[in-house]
Amino acid sequence: MMAPSFENVLQFVDILGVIVFAVSGALVASRKQMDIVGFVLMASLTGVGGGTLRDLLLGRQVFWVVDPLPVWVCLIVAVVVFFAAHVFHRRYTILLWADGIGIAIYAVMGAELARQFGSWPLVSVMMGVMTATFGGLLRDVICNETPLILRPEIYASCVAAGAGTHILLVAGDVPVGLAAATGIFVTFGLRAAGIIRGVTLPGYKARPGRDY
Amino acid sequence: MMAPSFENVLQFVDILGVIVFAVSGALVASRKQMDIVGFVLMASLTGVGGGTLRDLLLGRQVFWVVDPLPVWVCLIVAVVVFFAAHVFHRRYTILLWADGIGIAIYAVMGAELARQFGSWPLVSVMMGVMTATFGGLLRDVICNETPLILRPEIYASCVAAGAGTHILLVAGDVPVGLAAATGIFVTFGLRAAGIIRGVTLPGYKARPGRDY
Amino acid sequence: MMAPSFENVLQFVDILGVIVFAVSGALVASRKQMDIVGFVLMASLTGVGGGTLRDLLLGRQVFWVVDPLPVWVCLIVAVVVFFAAHVFHRRYTILLWADGIGIAIYAVMGAELARQFGSWPLVSVMMGVMTATFGGLLRDVICNETPLILRPEIYASCVAAGAGTHILLVAGDVPVGLAAATGIFVTFGLRAAGIIRGVTLPGYKARPGRDY
Repeated sequence: MMAPSFENVLQFVDILGVIVFAVSGALVASRKQMDIVGFVLMASLTGVGGGTLRDLLLGRQVFWVVDPLPVWVCLIVAVVVFFAAHVFHRRYTILLWADGIGIAIYAVMGAELARQFGSWPLVSVMMGVMTATFGGLLRDVICNETPLILRPEIYASCVAAGAGTHILLVAGDVPVGLAAATGIFVTFGLRAAGIIRGVTLPGYKARPGRDY
Repeated sequence: MMAPSFENVLQFVDILGVIVFAVSGALVASRKQMDIVGFVLMASLTGVGGGTLRDLLLGRQVFWVVDPLPVWVCLIVAVVVFFAAHVFHRRYTILLWADGIGIAIYAVMGAELARQFGSWPLVSVMMGVMTATFGGLLRDVICNETPLILRPEIYASCVAAGAGTHILLVAGDVPVGLAAATGIFVTFGLRAAGIIRGVTLPGYKARPGRDY
Repeated sequence: MMAPSFENVLQFVDILGVIVFAVSGALVASRKQMDIVGFVLMASLTGVGGGTLRDLLLGRQVFWVVDPLPVWVCLIVAVVVFFAAHVFHRRYTILLWADGIGIAIYAVMGAELARQFGSWPLVSVMMGVMTATFGGLLRDVICNETPLILRPEIYASCVAAGAGTHILLVAGDVPVGLAAATGIFVTFGLRAAGIIRGVTLPGYKARPGRDY
């Protein structure tokens, strides 16, 4: 038996990203009391939305049109959440954490794919940020939820930091696998600090008085 | 004189889909008391939005960039609705029905085009659902209306059922034209039951008490 | 020393469009009291959003994936606005004017690029309208602001008029540079009348009584 190759690990991590985003999409569907097809739709949009935008921007074939596995994954996740979600208290907390794992994975995967594609470092980081945030944005805008990037605690900052770490480390000849793991760890660690402790970056300070 | 070919019928149905979606877009513009250019913009976004997403995802050339006929159609529909809509009572009802015809047509057309493109069955159904719902989503999100997929009665379910019926029938060697007609009929019939009788699928049941 | 070529002027105008849209995006971020990364994200989405949609629809490579200069510009604009915006009273007014310059530039640039691509005149005008309005739409929808095209005073009309003027003049053998300048002037002049005097086109007139 062979040890799992780097390629296998990458595929596994990729599918893990789809799963957690699909969970977050299905949980938003549960907050809106949708029916099962609504669950499938929201899980799919959230699960594959970011990667779809990335592929369109890079001019690649859209990944789930080439291989339908991610769509099957979203379908199954949606059905499981539909029948199991009521078991859990505090579904919104689960949603936040699932989303946090998702952005950590996609920040790095989006940046890495753009880098392999020959993109400039800044463009790679931007692609990581978009891949990670777009699925959740779709989910929240369609369902009239407050987009997570509008919440006060750090969100986009974590994604940018993780994608940037990955691209910097790879540029400094760190092996891709190690760089990716570090990038994912940075994003998720920062986001966890945001969720648990409400850590914020200093926001723009409006002056008192009539200022809009 | 020749009987109309299957190709001609397809084109006619396609344009019919653009027309009814354009009507729904223009009617939302009327609810927001927009000017004539607003009518044209909303009619166009709604009329060609779903098909545009489908073409982008499949990597085809966008249909209205190749042949501007659908844009002309949206333009004319917008002008007609602008001057004629005040004649009608109950414009929101007309909007619902126009949208219902539109999703029935595009559920099948989107799935069929993806199938011809060689997509997997599940991807074809998903493409049908996206093609059918995206134009209306754009329309509602931009205009701050409640997206129709968030309404309690069946909506996305009808689209998924119709697209699935079409793909299943074609896989079972039913002629494409008959399969398409059946798929359109299934979608529209279910949606009509939703509009008239408020038919719903069992939604996700939140437990009483603090559950969010 | 050589006089600046038409190509150079075009590039300069293009970057000017990115700058003003990025400013408007960063100002919306300031209204939402985001942190610096939120400023960068909103400035980037608004600055390159319209051009990205244009490139996707035309099947071109996305401009900022090819050359990252626009992303750098958005980054710098975001940082400057983050530290300087509090100096200004009436940031919303600045936002409106920055957006107004942006739509004037992109109405013409979007239409011109589509024309060079061989699009039909109506498609070119539509592409100008989409390029000019999409970045701002993204900005407003993501941040829960009222999209500017929903405001009562003229907005989309200015864009359509400017893009149409440009395409008509070029079709009438007016030199491209002169046509573009006229188109930009028309869009900006009309929009200025909208901002200063609240000029509107006659909107759709709802009848009194139960009419919705």
